[in-house]
Amino acid sequence: MEQITTDICIIGAGPVGLFAVFEAGLLKMRCHLIDVLPQFGGQLSEIYPHKPIYDIPGYPEVTAQQLVDRLMEQIAPFHPTFSLGERVETLNRNDDGSYIIQTNDHTTVHCQVVVIAGGLGCFEPRKPEIDRLLDFEGKGVAYMVKNPEIFRDRRVVLAGGGDSALDWAIFLANVAERVTLIHRGDTFRGVPDSAEKVFELAKEGKIDLILKSNVVALTGEGHLQEITLLDRNNEVSHIAADHFIPLFGLSPKLGPIADWGLNIDRSAIVVDTVDYSTNVERIYAIGDINTYPGKLKLILCGFHEAALMAQSAFKYVYPEQKLSFKYTTVYGVSAF
Amino acid sequence: MEQITTDICIIGAGPVGLFAVFEAGLLKMRCHLIDVLPQFGGQLSEIYPHKPIYDIPGYPEVTAQQLVDRLMEQIAPFHPTFSLGERVETLNRNDDGSYIIQTNDHTTVHCQVVVIAGGLGCFEPRKPEIDRLLDFEGKGVAYMVKNPEIFRDRRVVLAGGGDSALDWAIFLANVAERVTLIHRGDTFRGVPDSAEKVFELAKEGKIDLILKSNVVALTGEGHLQEITLLDRNNEVSHIAADHFIPLFGLSPKLGPIADWGLNIDRSAIVVDTVDYSTNVERIYAIGDINTYPGKLKLILCGFHEAALMAQSAFKYVYPEQKLSFKYTTVYGVSAF
Repeated sequence: MEQITTDICIIGAGPVGLFAVFEAGLLKMRCHLIDVLPQFGGQLSEIYPHKPIYDIPGYPEVTAQQLVDRLMEQIAPFHPTFSLGERVETLNRNDDGSYIIQTNDHTTVHCQVVVIAGGLGCFEPRKPEIDRLLDFEGKGVAYMVKNPEIFRDRRVVLAGGGDSALDWAIFLANVAERVTLIHRGDTFRGVPDSAEKVFELAKEGKIDLILKSNVVALTGEGHLQEITLLDRNNEVSHIAADHFIPLFGLSPKLGPIADWGLNIDRSAIVVDTVDYSTNVERIYAIGDINTYPGKLKLILCGFHEAALMAQSAFKYVYPEQKLSFKYTTVYGVSAF
Repeated sequence: MEQITTDICIIGAGPVGLFAVFEAGLLKMRCHLIDVLPQFGGQLSEIYPHKPIYDIPGYPEVTAQQLVDRLMEQIAPFHPTFSLGERVETLNRNDDGSYIIQTNDHTTVHCQVVVIAGGLGCFEPRKPEIDRLLDFEGKGVAYMVKNPEIFRDRRVVLAGGGDSALDWAIFLANVAERVTLIHRGDTFRGVPDSAEKVFELAKEGKIDLILKSNVVALTGEGHLQEITLLDRNNEVSHIAADHFIPLFGLSPKLGPIADWGLNIDRSAIVVDTVDYSTNVERIYAIGDINTYPGKLKLILCGFHEAALMAQSAFKYVYPEQKLSFKYTTVYGVSAF
């Protein structure tokens, strides 16, 4: 039951939330971060720590975990504090405009500004209606690929028709003993390039592609062993499988944040690109959780959003002061 | 007299222009870059190659030249081409909407889209009216600090009241034999923090601070030797000096670009934040040269602008194709 007082409370400790600490720190604003995950780094650390990323400016290649480590090093001079493994439960506004946030672990954060940097962490995978699906969660059923090595030399069945299903089918073709991709249609919603690649791999016998079919049931003793399919002619078939990964996209799971009166458009928080503020005063949303005309869900865009947010948040933290913009090239960050 | 055909012609080969090659490359668009400087990297390589930068996300510290080198490595798979040491002279539109750009070196670039990433390269230092100032250019007079080491153990006089004057006075106090800062007023326009620091250094005798005075003349045999000052009471004084650096800001030098019909606001090109397009079809402006509500002149903001620009430019390069957005985490960039 911790009580924390800070300038900015950042919900989400992924790369964008972490970089927001840096931008806030340059303007002498302190930050506290809350994340439902037990470690910082957000989806980078949780879903794909060892996967290389290629589109961080200045990094021809960097693993997700390396990027998180470098960001942590970069923000260290500003001494951010963290509540990890906690979920934000309530938000209350004080008469002076500041906010009180409470977590499920009874941590209380008093802050002038709230920044929602929830990323994909505010979403959860869509679970298809398949008999006994929930029974095999953690026993062969997973909704995301956290560590591809788990699937090495195993029989993996994927289901879905979007980019995730295509991308992982391609990727796991080189890892798993056998990859089967099941899709209810016969065309894919994903990038044409990826769909083509999957068709090629199927032709080469490196992927089993089963179209116009649905997974209807899972069976196994203790662990998943078999998947039951139904095709459009109502013919039933069975596939032996060690793992089943349904990839049907994400559904929003804003949780209590959904009740804060924020404008939401297709599961994302609508912001103003002048400063990435929401419609509620002193609440900003940056990174994958926000939306605006032209929005791209890229980490590098979240960095930009964090910088503009910090400039704008300054007026709430230091209402008396005029913000003089200052470059960091001459001084190191310690001078701030 | 080279003739080049490309998808996107990028004017300016600084960090933002370079990263635009990456974002364009992911979408299979080829780029040609033109820069008036003889090397790529823009102001990073030209003005402060050895100076550390602290605000590149994921880089707790990186020198300007290192960042340029990493960016060059990152865009290498997309094989950009360059016309360096050339200035854009004319822009002509073809009936099909594409553009022809010509440089002062008679290079002709045929492209579908023009991206102006001119940075500060489109500006030039303001030159105060001082007797014989121009005579000593390169002989003691400089308008920017490219390599601070040149001033080691020399007598340096700076003039100005803004951030550049303050920042360099502070920085050079540890490098030069003697630093004198001359300012016509007695308060500074720069960041209060820096002004305070300068006053402190003056108190400690590490900077000679001369207020309410103007530099009126320079003298010397071959090389600068003496600076003549006039104070508000019209009293004349002289300072022995090896170097004089007037820092009175930058004035726009858009050159021929000023005649392209672009909306200009206080020396910057007005853009739409949806895609960083200008008011002229198929012409975009990214990085320090553009302006929009909330604009910050940060490299990381230019990276974001480059990403959104590329998504938008795609429709001109591939008018028949639908752009499917694709992450780079699963494939390396070579897969594109």
